[in-house]
Parts: sequence; structure tokens; C-alpha cells
Amino acid sequence: MVLPPISSQAVDPRTSRCHTVELGPLKLDSGVVLERFTVAYQTYGRLNAAKSNAILICHALTGDQYVADAHPVTGKPGWWHMLVGPGNLFDTSRYQLICANILGGCMGSTGPREVNPASGKPWGLSFPVITVGDIVAAQALLIDHLGIDQLFCVIGGSMGGMQVLEWASSFPERVYAAVPIAAAARHSAQNIAFHEVGRQAIMADPDWMGGDYLLAGTNPHRGLAVARMAAHITYLSETALHRKFGRKLQDRTQVTYGFEADFQVESYLRHQGSTFVDRFDANSYLYITRAMDYFDLAAQHGGVLANAFKATPVRFCVVSFTSDWLFPTRESRAIVHALNAVAAKVSFVEVESDKGHDAFLLDEPEFHKTLAGFLDGQATHRGLTAKAAE
Amino acid sequence: MVLPPISSQAVDPRTSRCHTVELGPLKLDSGVVLERFTVAYQTYGRLNAAKSNAILICHALTGDQYVADAHPVTGKPGWWHMLVGPGNLFDTSRYQLICANILGGCMGSTGPREVNPASGKPWGLSFPVITVGDIVAAQALLIDHLGIDQLFCVIGGSMGGMQVLEWASSFPERVYAAVPIAAAARHSAQNIAFHEVGRQAIMADPDWMGGDYLLAGTNPHRGLAVARMAAHITYLSETALHRKFGRKLQDRTQVTYGFEADFQVESYLRHQGSTFVDRFDANSYLYITRAMDYFDLAAQHGGVLANAFKATPVRFCVVSFTSDWLFPTRESRAIVHALNAVAAKVSFVEVESDKGHDAFLLDEPEFHKTLAGFLDGQATHRGLTAKAAE
Repeated sequence: MVLPPISSQAVDPRTSRCHTVELGPLKLDSGVVLERFTVAYQTYGRLNAAKSNAILICHALTGDQYVADAHPVTGKPGWWHMLVGPGNLFDTSRYQLICANILGGCMGSTGPREVNPASGKPWGLSFPVITVGDIVAAQALLIDHLGIDQLFCVIGGSMGGMQVLEWASSFPERVYAAVPIAAAARHSAQNIAFHEVGRQAIMADPDWMGGDYLLAGTNPHRGLAVARMAAHITYLSETALHRKFGRKLQDRTQVTYGFEADFQVESYLRHQGSTFVDRFDANSYLYITRAMDYFDLAAQHGGVLANAFKATPVRFCVVSFTSDWLFPTRESRAIVHALNAVAAKVSFVEVESDKGHDAFLLDEPEFHKTLAGFLDGQATHRGLTAKAAE
Repeated sequence: MVLPPISSQAVDPRTSRCHTVELGPLKLDSGVVLERFTVAYQTYGRLNAAKSNAILICHALTGDQYVADAHPVTGKPGWWHMLVGPGNLFDTSRYQLICANILGGCMGSTGPREVNPASGKPWGLSFPVITVGDIVAAQALLIDHLGIDQLFCVIGGSMGGMQVLEWASSFPERVYAAVPIAAAARHSAQNIAFHEVGRQAIMADPDWMGGDYLLAGTNPHRGLAVARMAAHITYLSETALHRKFGRKLQDRTQVTYGFEADFQVESYLRHQGSTFVDRFDANSYLYITRAMDYFDLAAQHGGVLANAFKATPVRFCVVSFTSDWLFPTRESRAIVHALNAVAAKVSFVEVESDKGHDAFLLDEPEFHKTLAGFLDGQATHRGLTAKAAE
């Protein structure tokens, strides 16, 4: 156990911890069995005696377990740091927060970047292709390991929201409340298409070396940067891009009649691409996008989404954003319809925002109020008082 | 002059012709002077004695002059072949159609793929960066050369529509009617961003060789394919992708847990990428996307779009498609507002279609009826009878 650097006053070094644990075996959806695998995870706050106050936060495609702490590579504050702390939305005096780097990730959990114990070499493309179901099954082993029978809440945005849905569907008795945000019960054709562009960009980079770049000592940073740039556009709304950049020029008063970044939006995108490659693994990007592509909760249940939630005791709060065109509101509505069809306890909020898909990571007061209201209500119902964890 | 292969019965080999002409000088917006340049163009139908029946068709980013003839590389029918022919929308017994490969293109007009006479080597990145204004100025020299004072109509979709707007703005007395389709008076931040992804994909390909791939004997086909794949997604609507492909698998009954094209949409996109590189030049792609990025008609007129059309005599028909998210209806509406502000003759039709931006190239009866109605009305007003050109 190593204490990470502290980025935020909200992170109490006495209760914030980075852990790793060896788990297994795990039979994957592909049929491959992982005998042992590592999960790297963060916790914030303390588990109460009844072990009833744990919130599992599921991170998105390029997220990680550094919810509130400074990221060890970039030094930037955790991706939901503004929501974590005593008295905050994720009240660390009331809840214990758990966030695990997903299986297939590249921040310490077993994935293509890690060494395959059987060969002594990095997994690379010999790592088995995983699914959202596998990611959640690995998390369930972690929750077993922590001795937690039932999570108070499972929450996450985007691919994190897919994990929330998978949790609620596969382990309904182990989830008290579930909050899928800006998510979908299946990946759309357009989203598969965008992922495929990203994968092709990576695999087109000769430095990818057929996936063996770690062995070869190369880095497909150009392909990964292009993948990130394409994806990044989909995380924003046209309105947000226009407000932020419009056609404003970058450090110049007129166009240069060349291929430098004349426009601020170009400069911004290039920056997004080049900083991403410092913190992310190209093969991990392939595996995780593939897991999202494969996600189709209805298909796992005879083609009827409602069957995924039959007689569910889970309390749901489904959240979408008006300007999110990657996971538009209609996807959330389809989830809500399925939940209504099985008379599940569900509330649904479409948050008015012009920030696009990324709104779930940004300062969106209405969104945060929605989460706070739902969490507080459910926690009270569950008998979790503030300071319950102290 | 070479007769191209005939793909369509609508193409009359007696009146369909492929031509090239040397023109110049042309002072570009960048200040560079092109002393001589080549324009490759197609004509269909015959110019009448009054030279009043010419329609200039402006092609889009990856289009070309093969409006109705089979494409010389792919052998596929021309991109608007279904609209061309005697008695058809583009009635070749009534009009002469002219379509020129744009300056900077790669189908015979001077561009980065052609040899720079001064050096005896391909231009590559030494080709000057061009604008939509330059492209139109080159076309105007062609129209001069053909002895045509006033075009009956200038029409085009997407970047073709930008050219239409530029024509109407720069040469209002030379345009009787103008039809900008699925276009915008300025390229948006999101569209610049998508273009930048494409350019970065090309320039990230080591075979691009800093733009000198023709000299080096390489071909940045991987980068260009990725660029095309990303762009292609933006040409379709989410609905069209869903209807066409959904999550259907490609020649298999279950996913393979690998990175092959499991989904039809992946296979389709890969095909789009790989066929595109056979017919298009990577540097041309850089130059033409840049010209679109730079397009901002209001900025050329003191920041007020209406100023681009002051006292215009041109009759406009502005067309957009409901599901086009690349050049959404609001962009067309902004053009119409500007035209209304100067009391221009303008009709505006938003065509209900779920086919996205590409609708202007597809079988869209309502769209075709709109064009036919407008063209026929204007032609009658202009005194162009059917068979006028015979």
C-alpha cells in the first residue's frame, strides 16, 4: 500500500488509500479462465461496522481509480474530486467510496500492459478480450474480498454506467441503489463506428507493432493520439465547442495558409491527443472500447431489456444530459421503459446542459443536486446517517 | 480530349465530354500567384447560342467532375448520374452542365498531386494553401474561357454549396440562380475539429513522408483510410447507421472476442476507408479540408453575412436535411436570414430525411422534386425551353 499524493483538501490521507489485491479464478465470457489477476483500487472514507455504506464508483473508458486523488502520472486532481469529501455529495464521513481500475485497464489492474505470469512478457494482444460483464464479475470478486454483501450504491457515467446496469442485472441482491449516468443498455452502431476509427488509428501506427510495442520498445503514440482526438469530439457538444472556441485563432491574428494549428479548436484537440498518450496504454484502449462495443444487455436476456431487471429490488436513478449525442437521452429512456415494465423503483432525470457527454465530469449544479438528493434519500432509507462511518 | 467510359444510358456520348484547359494567372488569397494551372472538367449537353443555359455543378470535398459518367478509377456511376439526362432533373436537352475538378483536387486539375512545372516534381506540400474563394476564382476563369457571361445556375452540396455561396457573393452578376445544398456560410468549430482529426491521421502515417510520398514512392493509405472512416461517420445520421447496420454481425453468428470486424458497421467503415485511398490523394485531402476550414463568408464582409449579398440579383434556393448533423439546418437558416435581410429572392426548403448529410447524394424524392421545381421555374423565367440546347 502506497499513499498517493494528495491533490485536494477533501481527501483525508487517514482514510484515502490505494490498494492492490490478487484475485481469481475468473471465467471470462470468452471462455478463457484468468487464474489470478490484480485489481488496483482506491478507497475514501471508512466502511461502517455493518458494511452497509459502501459506494462503488465505476469509471469510464479512459478514467481510472483516482476519483479524488491527484493522478499519479498527470498530477491533475481526480476526475470527481469536487464531489468527494466530508459533507460533500460523496460524503466520506457517511460512505466508504471504492473505485477499482477496471480489468483490462492500465493503471495497475491486470490488462494488456501488465506482465503475463505464464510467459513473463507483457500480455499485449494475448490478453483475452473482455466484456463489461467480465469487468463487473472482477469487481464482484473484489467486493467479496472486502467482505461486503451488499453495496449501498453503484454509480458511474458512460462506460461506468454500463457497469452499473450490469451490476444491477447480474447481482441485484448486492446492489441497494444504482445510478447509471449518460449511459446505454447497448452500444449503438454509430458508437461502434467511432470506436472502430480509434482502433484502426492505433493499429495503423507502425509503432503499434502488431500489439507488441512494449516488447519492441516502441510506442504507438501517434495512432493513440488520433484515436483520442476523434473520441474527444464526441464527448463535447457542438454548442460547447462553439462557445469555447468558435473560429477563434490560436496566438495569431490571421490564418497562416498552412497546416499548423491556426484555430484554437485544433490546438486544443492536439493537446488532448498528446497528453492522453502519456497516461494511457494503446492496447488497453483497444480492449476497453471492444468491451463497450460488445455490451448489449437485452441480447443477454433473450432480446428483451426488461428481462435483465425482472423483480429487481434495486432502486434506480437514471440520468442523461440534453446535449449528449454520444449517449443521448433516448438511450436512458429505453432503460427507464424497461425498468418501468418490471415495476422497478426508478427515477429519471434529464439534465439540461449544453456540455455534451462530458457533462457528467463537469461542474453541473443541477446534476449534482440530483445525485445529492437521490443519495441522501436512499441513505436515509438505508439508515446511513452522516458520520455513520466514523 | 478523351471520351470517358459511359456508365449510364442518360449520358449521351455525343454531348458528354471530358476536357482540360490551361488557365492563369490567378492570384490566390494567400498572395501566391499561380501563373498557369490546369482545370479538368466535364460537360453534358450543349451550350445554346445565347450561352444562357449553363449550369455549373460544384462538387464536394471528395467528389469530382464525374457527375454522370463512370468514375475512371472505380468504374462506379457518377455521383449525381440519376439526375442527369434528357427529360431528367438536369435535362441535358435544356441545359449544358459543367463540372470542374476543383483547384487542389486530384482528378486532373492542378493540385498537390500534379507536377509543378517550375521544379519538375510533384507539388506536394509546396502547393500553396487555397481557399474556397480561390477555387471559385479558378472556376470563373474557366467560365470566361467558355465565353459564358452569366451562368444560369450554380449548384452544389456540402463544400459544393460553399462554392455556390462564394459564387453568388463574388460574382452576383454572373449567377442567375444559386442552389446551396446542405452547406454553411462558415465552417463550424466541430467541423474544423473533425477535419483536423483527418489531417492528423494522414500526417501521423510515416508513409506520408512529410508530404513527399509521391517522390518517395510510398502511399499513406493507412492514415488516409482512417481519415475517411472518421469523416464518413459524420456524413450519415445515427438513425441511418442504426437502420442499415444496427448491431448486426458480419458473416458470423456470434462475436469472436477479437479485433476483427465482428459488426457489419465496422466492415462497412473499413471498406469505405480502403476503397477511398484508391481514388484519392492524401495531400489533396489536406488542402481541401483546409479550404473548408478557412471558409467564413461573414468574416470576408466585415463580420456581417448579409453584407456578402447586398443588392444581390441572384435567385436562391437553400436546401437542408433534417438529419444532417454536419451541416445542420440552422446553418442554412443563417444563410436565409442574411438573404432576407437584404431582401434577396430566396426560397428555403428543409427536406425531411433520416439519411444525414449524404442525403444530397442519395435517392431523396422530396429533395429532387424541390430541385426540379426550382430549376424549371427559373429556367422558364429565363426563357430556357426544353430542347433549348438542341
